[in-house]
Amino acid sequence: MGANWGKNLKLSIFGESHGKMIGINIDGVPAGIKIDMEYIEKYMAKRAPNSELFSTSRKEQDKVEIISGVYEGITTGAPLCAVIKNENQNSKDYIKLKKIFRPSHSDYPAYIKFNGFNDIRGGGHFSGRLTAPIVFAGAFVKSILTKKGINIGANIIKIGKIEIKDRIVQVEDIEKLNNKKIAILNDEELEKAKFEMEKARKDKNSIGGVIECTAFGVPTGLGNPFFDSLESTISHLAFSIPSIKGIEFGKGFDFTEYLGSEINDEYFVKDGDIKTYSNNNGGIVGGLTTGMPIVFRVVIKPTPSILKKQRSVDFDKMENCELEITGQHDSCIVPRIVAVIEAITAIAILEHMLEGKI
Amino acid sequence: MGANWGKNLKLSIFGESHGKMIGINIDGVPAGIKIDMEYIEKYMAKRAPNSELFSTSRKEQDKVEIISGVYEGITTGAPLCAVIKNENQNSKDYIKLKKIFRPSHSDYPAYIKFNGFNDIRGGGHFSGRLTAPIVFAGAFVKSILTKKGINIGANIIKIGKIEIKDRIVQVEDIEKLNNKKIAILNDEELEKAKFEMEKARKDKNSIGGVIECTAFGVPTGLGNPFFDSLESTISHLAFSIPSIKGIEFGKGFDFTEYLGSEINDEYFVKDGDIKTYSNNNGGIVGGLTTGMPIVFRVVIKPTPSILKKQRSVDFDKMENCELEITGQHDSCIVPRIVAVIEAITAIAILEHMLEGKI
Amino acid sequence: MGANWGKNLKLSIFGESHGKMIGINIDGVPAGIKIDMEYIEKYMAKRAPNSELFSTSRKEQDKVEIISGVYEGITTGAPLCAVIKNENQNSKDYIKLKKIFRPSHSDYPAYIKFNGFNDIRGGGHFSGRLTAPIVFAGAFVKSILTKKGINIGANIIKIGKIEIKDRIVQVEDIEKLNNKKIAILNDEELEKAKFEMEKARKDKNSIGGVIECTAFGVPTGLGNPFFDSLESTISHLAFSIPSIKGIEFGKGFDFTEYLGSEINDEYFVKDGDIKTYSNNNGGIVGGLTTGMPIVFRVVIKPTPSILKKQRSVDFDKMENCELEITGQHDSCIVPRIVAVIEAITAIAILEHMLEGKI
Amino acid sequence: MGANWGKNLKLSIFGESHGKMIGINIDGVPAGIKIDMEYIEKYMAKRAPNSELFSTSRKEQDKVEIISGVYEGITTGAPLCAVIKNENQNSKDYIKLKKIFRPSHSDYPAYIKFNGFNDIRGGGHFSGRLTAPIVFAGAFVKSILTKKGINIGANIIKIGKIEIKDRIVQVEDIEKLNNKKIAILNDEELEKAKFEMEKARKDKNSIGGVIECTAFGVPTGLGNPFFDSLESTISHLAFSIPSIKGIEFGKGFDFTEYLGSEINDEYFVKDGDIKTYSNNNGGIVGGLTTGMPIVFRVVIKPTPSILKKQRSVDFDKMENCELEITGQHDSCIVPRIVAVIEAITAIAILEHMLEGKI
Repeated sequence: MGANWGKNLKLSIFGESHGKMIGINIDGVPAGIKIDMEYIEKYMAKRAPNSELFSTSRKEQDKVEIISGVYEGITTGAPLCAVIKNENQNSKDYIKLKKIFRPSHSDYPAYIKFNGFNDIRGGGHFSGRLTAPIVFAGAFVKSILTKKGINIGANIIKIGKIEIKDRIVQVEDIEKLNNKKIAILNDEELEKAKFEMEKARKDKNSIGGVIECTAFGVPTGLGNPFFDSLESTISHLAFSIPSIKGIEFGKGFDFTEYLGSEINDEYFVKDGDIKTYSNNNGGIVGGLTTGMPIVFRVVIKPTPSILKKQRSVDFDKMENCELEITGQHDSCIVPRIVAVIEAITAIAILEHMLEGKI
Repeated sequence: MGANWGKNLKLSIFGESHGKMIGINIDGVPAGIKIDMEYIEKYMAKRAPNSELFSTSRKEQDKVEIISGVYEGITTGAPLCAVIKNENQNSKDYIKLKKIFRPSHSDYPAYIKFNGFNDIRGGGHFSGRLTAPIVFAGAFVKSILTKKGINIGANIIKIGKIEIKDRIVQVEDIEKLNNKKIAILNDEELEKAKFEMEKARKDKNSIGGVIECTAFGVPTGLGNPFFDSLESTISHLAFSIPSIKGIEFGKGFDFTEYLGSEINDEYFVKDGDIKTYSNNNGGIVGGLTTGMPIVFRVVIKPTPSILKKQRSVDFDKMENCELEITGQHDSCIVPRIVAVIEAITAIAILEHMLEGKI
Repeated sequence: MGANWGKNLKLSIFGESHGKMIGINIDGVPAGIKIDMEYIEKYMAKRAPNSELFSTSRKEQDKVEIISGVYEGITTGAPLCAVIKNENQNSKDYIKLKKIFRPSHSDYPAYIKFNGFNDIRGGGHFSGRLTAPIVFAGAFVKSILTKKGINIGANIIKIGKIEIKDRIVQVEDIEKLNNKKIAILNDEELEKAKFEMEKARKDKNSIGGVIECTAFGVPTGLGNPFFDSLESTISHLAFSIPSIKGIEFGKGFDFTEYLGSEINDEYFVKDGDIKTYSNNNGGIVGGLTTGMPIVFRVVIKPTPSILKKQRSVDFDKMENCELEITGQHDSCIVPRIVAVIEAITAIAILEHMLEGKI
Repeated sequence: MGANWGKNLKLSIFGESHGKMIGINIDGVPAGIKIDMEYIEKYMAKRAPNSELFSTSRKEQDKVEIISGVYEGITTGAPLCAVIKNENQNSKDYIKLKKIFRPSHSDYPAYIKFNGFNDIRGGGHFSGRLTAPIVFAGAFVKSILTKKGINIGANIIKIGKIEIKDRIVQVEDIEKLNNKKIAILNDEELEKAKFEMEKARKDKNSIGGVIECTAFGVPTGLGNPFFDSLESTISHLAFSIPSIKGIEFGKGFDFTEYLGSEINDEYFVKDGDIKTYSNNNGGIVGGLTTGMPIVFRVVIKPTPSILKKQRSVDFDKMENCELEITGQHDSCIVPRIVAVIEAITAIAILEHMLEGKI
């Protein structure tokens, strides 16, 4: 369970970190959409492991192959299925982990849930690698939304304890970020963030961070009250991403710092458009878009895979033990998650745009 | 759209603030469950408007009536439908609001979404009043979970800028809170919170707050990787509640303050049970429960309905105007939301417990 | 389970034969639709018990009350919930049935499924009475479709062994049937059918029949390949109706009598329209509508409730026994099912018309 | 749309007749199930094209490859994804068909639905070839059910106008059929059927048939009232299979030939088991299983692809024309559909067995 999502745009993911291939089947795709493989590949590279991203040295090109739903480069309306072959994985490192659970990883609860039959190699189906096909879907969806004037961009606003001040405030900022490996607008702040990530890596440790995502140009009235609020949809998808532990829209947890009169988004009309003076609600009230930019933030916890010695339990012997994870691991996953956050935002928006009308 | 939720336990809500009645249809209910109306009514009173809760003076007893699914006080396995009649509503206050949208309310985007056909009286179907049937469902589900040793309690940890230090740390704390109108354990802190809410009320203003929810006794391995992670389910439901603008699990946004080595939840075994020294992940890793308590927090924004004059737009004339809302409104909705948060937590847990097995 | 249906137009039914009320919650309703209660009530009367329909003498007016989703007679886009109060039911007749299962009724399997907690009175939630709210939904949906030029009509083509020759072949035939209590076009054939139903009634027995449904004006290309074929949707709904035991589209089971060359629906163009010379596929090929009328037939089994003595099992004693059902029961349910079949056809068509597009 | 099915056991299919590969992703698979590839391959061969089955000469081995969800031959609980590579397809035959629609094929409505972007080669995603991954899923599910004492077998009971008398009446008959290429028990009747299919082939024509499916050992009380009746589930899946045009359970359309007293399935108790003297309802009443064998029949229309000249429309010129299909096509698809019917029956039963319980 957990591999399927969506009512109108239906995603179904498959694969494991060390299996033959991973992939996604997308149903509900509009027919007649031109596939821009160059754009998709460039986009997927934003998530792929990369030494410049303080990532694992696993050499994965994340080469995506479309196997159905496209004919002569254009979507047919049939399910769009794409796969990525796995390469170079080293499963040996994981054999001893089978019964010695890594702290803060899915190993232990997955063992219980699946009676020990879960594939432990590289985290199996629980691996963050499964976000690659989600990014493929997001890249495809973004190309649809862009043509409709909807622009989505995410940037890092915190790496460890380092706060990044410079943030996306207009569409042009998103374009600037497209040419950067790490989604931080200001170069000075970027260097500080890199230094922090490098420090964690050298310490055989890991750090987390915060990503802010902004969507410009989303039509007013998208979403629903109650169970299908746009916030429900976005948060549902956000918490599908491994390591996300919090989400907030607009002012989020800072809403407590203000009185209603200070924080309500008051309306004004200008040139026939209704807008709000402020956007403290992050573009969503009552579960529906207001036409103002959608703004939300997610927090990513420090990658649980660290090279330091940790305490764990030997499940066979049912006794305490120590665990030292080997291999190469990301010291900070935040830069790679940026593309995933943009992807799920695009998917959430299209899902609601596809909502049944007559 | 938005009225339905769930795969195993299926909820379907209906009604408007000023309509004839509101209600919920719950399908997938196990047969043979004794209905404890006294417990349910007591529980629903926690959410009902109450002058002691700095709430509206609307005299609603939220008297729930079960209309199907129960025979001789025991569930039959058929859909459990319950309704609450609306009373005493005064719709006159809302007539002028039809085209002058209240800031930070659903009025404007709902008008756009439904081409102006939405029922504006009391917020119509967007009203927080629709959480009453959700609390009914939650009370019923809680009674099932309690028998299975699962205890869920929520407490207020912030009212406006006032932080509450004393929190639920054990099942006994939940029991203590059951005898309190406002879910704050420490009486001194409770008084401070009341003062803050009263201050906002006198100022014709409103304030928000933060609620923390804890679930003890949840079995290990509940949930799923990716799209049906337990965090996805809980957050999806949480953002269905009007005014919720953020959610975080375990350390949440504070995860950035720590290194992986400081924050990973390491395992130990004791008396044949596997536990973690810390519970920074709030009882969920990889989308699955670890057996440790589930802990999450939500932020509630200041109620948008304030009695102060605000700026808005007259949609008919398409020009700027001022708006002064009359009537009685909650200056702080946080105390009443506590029961709703417990309800959706119970519902999320049962939903996953009902997941298909052979 | 089983109370919910639909992705775009979501139905959720509730109630039992002898409970307080039965009803339906419909989500996904377009806003701005005028509700024609006169039409809906007239339509629901087609299904209601009626002595002229060889039905039970239960005096139910099936008076429907809309409790949400409508404001000033027009849909608001919020869930449309409607209830029908139960009256005059006599539950005493059913007490002895609790452990002596009626042949071909749900009593025995329901007892096993729900561990004996199912409500047996009048069949409880399994009662055909639950089709009343479905007919309400269908009447509402039909009023939407009619405005879009889609006309749906069903007629009886077999009562017991009596075949009815005269059938709906054009929209005008549907209009003719609207003025008849029993959906048989030809008066002579109608008399024969009545005689047959009367004969069964006098014999304390029951008979079944076949209904044919035709939908004119359905747009081309509605439906899907595979799991959401239009035939899948219609048949899924048809088998939701108690007593339906078979369905066939177009030539149906007679397809075996022909060679491909005799039965293929060949295309021709006339006045810029593409049509087929024949319509052996009943307007659906590859799961999609062809633009030709949708035509399908369902068979209704003889009502299992008969007043003759039958063999059964006393579940308490686990021994064979005899059973004599008392009370009033339909000797032929076919005339009342006609409206239900039209209703589910309308619902299926609108569901597919609401399918996500951008 | 149409590629996804299921709530507990979730299927997602992909691929086109002449694309790279076809496949299926199955989520909700129990962990710890041993995969018997020999059984699966043998089973899939029953559906694969085969000259002895009067089928196309397309040389497809339907070699299935599992790409996720299995580790060391045992299911892990992660999504079970399997693919089949396409080979030897000749797309040239189809180029001219793009705008000259084949009668009774999906070509025309698919063209309208997808604005002409649908892949026409071999029927694209509409191809019956997509039933191969469904048969894979069915073979896997059958292996689970068999261990639980549930045996499912289908046999041909009509080929064209030729009726087959000898039918499955006990589990042993299913075993007998396993050694036969064509699912007809009696050898004499088998020869007659072969002769009929050969006659159609020589005539460049096609014929249909009827398949009856029986499931022994299904537990009592499986299914639901109304929208998730077991008949709804089975029929929904059955009409997902191209060329199926009717389905009936138990006596089906013959129910009209009997009075209630003649056709009701009366209960008796023997050795502590409750059974019915007859099984006219085909093992399902009120949407639930009675514990008696599930019995249903489907009709398959003559394959629309025939080599005879047919009338059609040239869509570019919008004028009438003639069409002569070339290439190799099945003159009778019935023998190959047998495995598909068994597959969907197994899937439907497991889906209901996985229904949420606590």
